[in-house]
Amino acid sequence: MRLVRTKDCQSLDEVKQLMTRPPLDEVQVSPASLERTTQVFGEPLTPVESVNRIIQDIKKDGNRGLLKYIELFDGVALAENQLFATEEEFVAAEQAVSERFKEALQFSIDNVWRFHEKQLQNSWFSTEADGVILGQKVTSLDRVGIYVPGGNAPLVSSVVMCAIPAKVAGVPEIVMATPLRNGKIDPHLLVAAKACGVTTVLKAGGAHGIAALAYGTESLRAVDKIVGAGNVYVTLAKKMVFGTVGIDSIAGPSEILIVADETAPAKYIAADLLSQAEHDWEAAVCLITTSEKLAHEVLVEIEEQLATLSTAEIARSALDTWGLIVVTRDEQESIELANIFAAEHLELMVKDPWTMMGKIRHAGAIFLGKYSSEPIGDYVAGPNHVLPTNGTARFLSPLSTNDFLKTSSIISFSVDGFLKHGPHAVEIADREGLEAHGNAIRVRLDDLKAGEQNE
Amino acid sequence: MRLVRTKDCQSLDEVKQLMTRPPLDEVQVSPASLERTTQVFGEPLTPVESVNRIIQDIKKDGNRGLLKYIELFDGVALAENQLFATEEEFVAAEQAVSERFKEALQFSIDNVWRFHEKQLQNSWFSTEADGVILGQKVTSLDRVGIYVPGGNAPLVSSVVMCAIPAKVAGVPEIVMATPLRNGKIDPHLLVAAKACGVTTVLKAGGAHGIAALAYGTESLRAVDKIVGAGNVYVTLAKKMVFGTVGIDSIAGPSEILIVADETAPAKYIAADLLSQAEHDWEAAVCLITTSEKLAHEVLVEIEEQLATLSTAEIARSALDTWGLIVVTRDEQESIELANIFAAEHLELMVKDPWTMMGKIRHAGAIFLGKYSSEPIGDYVAGPNHVLPTNGTARFLSPLSTNDFLKTSSIISFSVDGFLKHGPHAVEIADREGLEAHGNAIRVRLDDLKAGEQNE
Repeated sequence: MRLVRTKDCQSLDEVKQLMTRPPLDEVQVSPASLERTTQVFGEPLTPVESVNRIIQDIKKDGNRGLLKYIELFDGVALAENQLFATEEEFVAAEQAVSERFKEALQFSIDNVWRFHEKQLQNSWFSTEADGVILGQKVTSLDRVGIYVPGGNAPLVSSVVMCAIPAKVAGVPEIVMATPLRNGKIDPHLLVAAKACGVTTVLKAGGAHGIAALAYGTESLRAVDKIVGAGNVYVTLAKKMVFGTVGIDSIAGPSEILIVADETAPAKYIAADLLSQAEHDWEAAVCLITTSEKLAHEVLVEIEEQLATLSTAEIARSALDTWGLIVVTRDEQESIELANIFAAEHLELMVKDPWTMMGKIRHAGAIFLGKYSSEPIGDYVAGPNHVLPTNGTARFLSPLSTNDFLKTSSIISFSVDGFLKHGPHAVEIADREGLEAHGNAIRVRLDDLKAGEQNE
Repeated sequence: MRLVRTKDCQSLDEVKQLMTRPPLDEVQVSPASLERTTQVFGEPLTPVESVNRIIQDIKKDGNRGLLKYIELFDGVALAENQLFATEEEFVAAEQAVSERFKEALQFSIDNVWRFHEKQLQNSWFSTEADGVILGQKVTSLDRVGIYVPGGNAPLVSSVVMCAIPAKVAGVPEIVMATPLRNGKIDPHLLVAAKACGVTTVLKAGGAHGIAALAYGTESLRAVDKIVGAGNVYVTLAKKMVFGTVGIDSIAGPSEILIVADETAPAKYIAADLLSQAEHDWEAAVCLITTSEKLAHEVLVEIEEQLATLSTAEIARSALDTWGLIVVTRDEQESIELANIFAAEHLELMVKDPWTMMGKIRHAGAIFLGKYSSEPIGDYVAGPNHVLPTNGTARFLSPLSTNDFLKTSSIISFSVDGFLKHGPHAVEIADREGLEAHGNAIRVRLDDLKAGEQNE
């Protein structure tokens, strides 16, 4: 981990630079990924090029293209009728998982459901004195895709966090896409999918999974929106299909920012930093503190906890590349830096976290106090764990029920309202040089005037 | 206009195909555009390639790149200190526009403000029995860009529709980007910008305007989100910068769908169809009706109104390419088709529009009854006129105050809450193979247990 002191920096922006990632289309992939690409395509395509190629193939070849890429990337030759998880697989999965797991899953689902229900919005309308009625009609999406990464373990919580808000919103069809691991889908994922009301499980991940969701194939109807995070190929594919379908965000590797003062336990800070670091070779972890003493204690604690951690290799790599401790001059500077970073996860382990929270403008999720450990938010607290990364909390929100709803404006004009509004609309239309816009108003105004004269 | 009857079609999807546009990255631009591109770049780049090139240049060269493209595309050699509208230009603009215009503008602003104020959402929290506090903090964006197209006329209403929701949300800085026309910005646009609280007017449109907003230059701080529609180059640029900044949508040419029965006046239908057709060579207009008689009356009316229309050339081209009348078997089929099209603007000119509205699932804005002419919504009704196009109303909403707000989740755990939630979080972390996630909970649980024993 790198340690910097703001008193040695020219500006806070200089600190920000230390944590700024390259844009998505310039991301360097690992040599292993590049070799894989070369094997598959016969040439060392960039991620953008290979994702483009995959999408075109799925659009053109449907199931045949999908099956080809499943074989190439996941090493399994499926038949067309094996693309989706079957009832037998769901039943077998139920028997393969523990009761303890089912309890924890249900606990998580209940909390996530309750929180997301509070986000539901009603259709509304207002009536004006002149008889005009204006409003907003809220409707759920018809059909959504949720992406659940393969990675090294079954990300059960991703199923819950993506599917439950869709269910709460009233989406009738939820298609989950996830890559096969060792030729199968982990039973924990299947049990979670069933419990969350997923209607179809597609055994495909990566860019080909995204393309199949967006464009459909002979055996899969295209969805309207795709949510959920994946690796750089998945993210690029989501960006490319945006417009054809909706997407939630352009997500990068996970990140945590902890603002702490001398009252915070170094052991908890270290544990929470490591919980993000183990996520990804490129995960970013940052501690901002007014206490130089705490900074050093945390460094010692991290080494101690890393010694026995099974995921230490990934965590250490993330800490080396994207690990940062910033010692600030005062609390005000810590807050300013937190707002500049606009982190995905922000923990406030300070004496008075609520007062500090009031000063935070940009963060995906804010965890207050020493018992609000970030992993508790990942799994069971209730708020969504799909959060804006890489500074996008400046303009994006956590995944929510609203991602699965959309609105239509409602406009109903009375004669009185039309007579009052009409002339103003004509004036603006004329200034815009849009004659037919004005005419649409004029033909009605003329009729109404003629009607008056006839009376 | 093409006329089809559903009784002659195999399925409603066949009708839908008639109105389906190519994806954005396959859009064919006009020979004139292509020639322009060749002049500028020395080679006939595709829209995607030229937009890519422009963005890279602005990122690399800042103001110098921006000034270069303003000269190349808008034909004006500006100096660096002429990039933004000056106080003198605003003052001169105020004097150049009529009082009648100012009145109409203020009427529009007031209505748009009132409607968008109703969309405002509060931060909220809930307290659980075990002392856990969960919630959502709502914050405005810091700095947004609004795009106002050049086109052939000053799109005053675009300024109102993009800037007012940002103001209502509380965004402190609003940068408007618009191309020069004949070397200057139309005074109506400047007056509208001032009245709507725009803080900076950048004299640049096109992909270079979007790139300047997204990445900033020496004299412009980058914004957090860009909203507003433009041509295919602008739209491609918005899609490319998405992730670095937020964007509202991927908008295509304008479109209207009118569902009418025998009670609807052909004259009004024709006028409203033409009001969309005059927007753009590629605008789409569609009438769905159960009445073959009405269909023919509308065709006659359109010809009559076209005869004297100053924008007839564009309108006629749009009608030829994307004009469609569908005669359906019954009202149920009309509704089904409207939901399949998911049109930007949907007018219901039927006997009982409110009952039909209840059955509409997908539309940007729904206009009820014969006095709810679409242009009245464009200008003065109050709801936003920036709406999802090309079927994206399946998953997108009109531009709203919420586009300029975002939320942060709030998570605050008590000891009791932590003891109750912690073990479930550990169970899921273990299943996901994320040991450090579990550890972050375990270190705290251990401490709490040790504390109990010490008591």
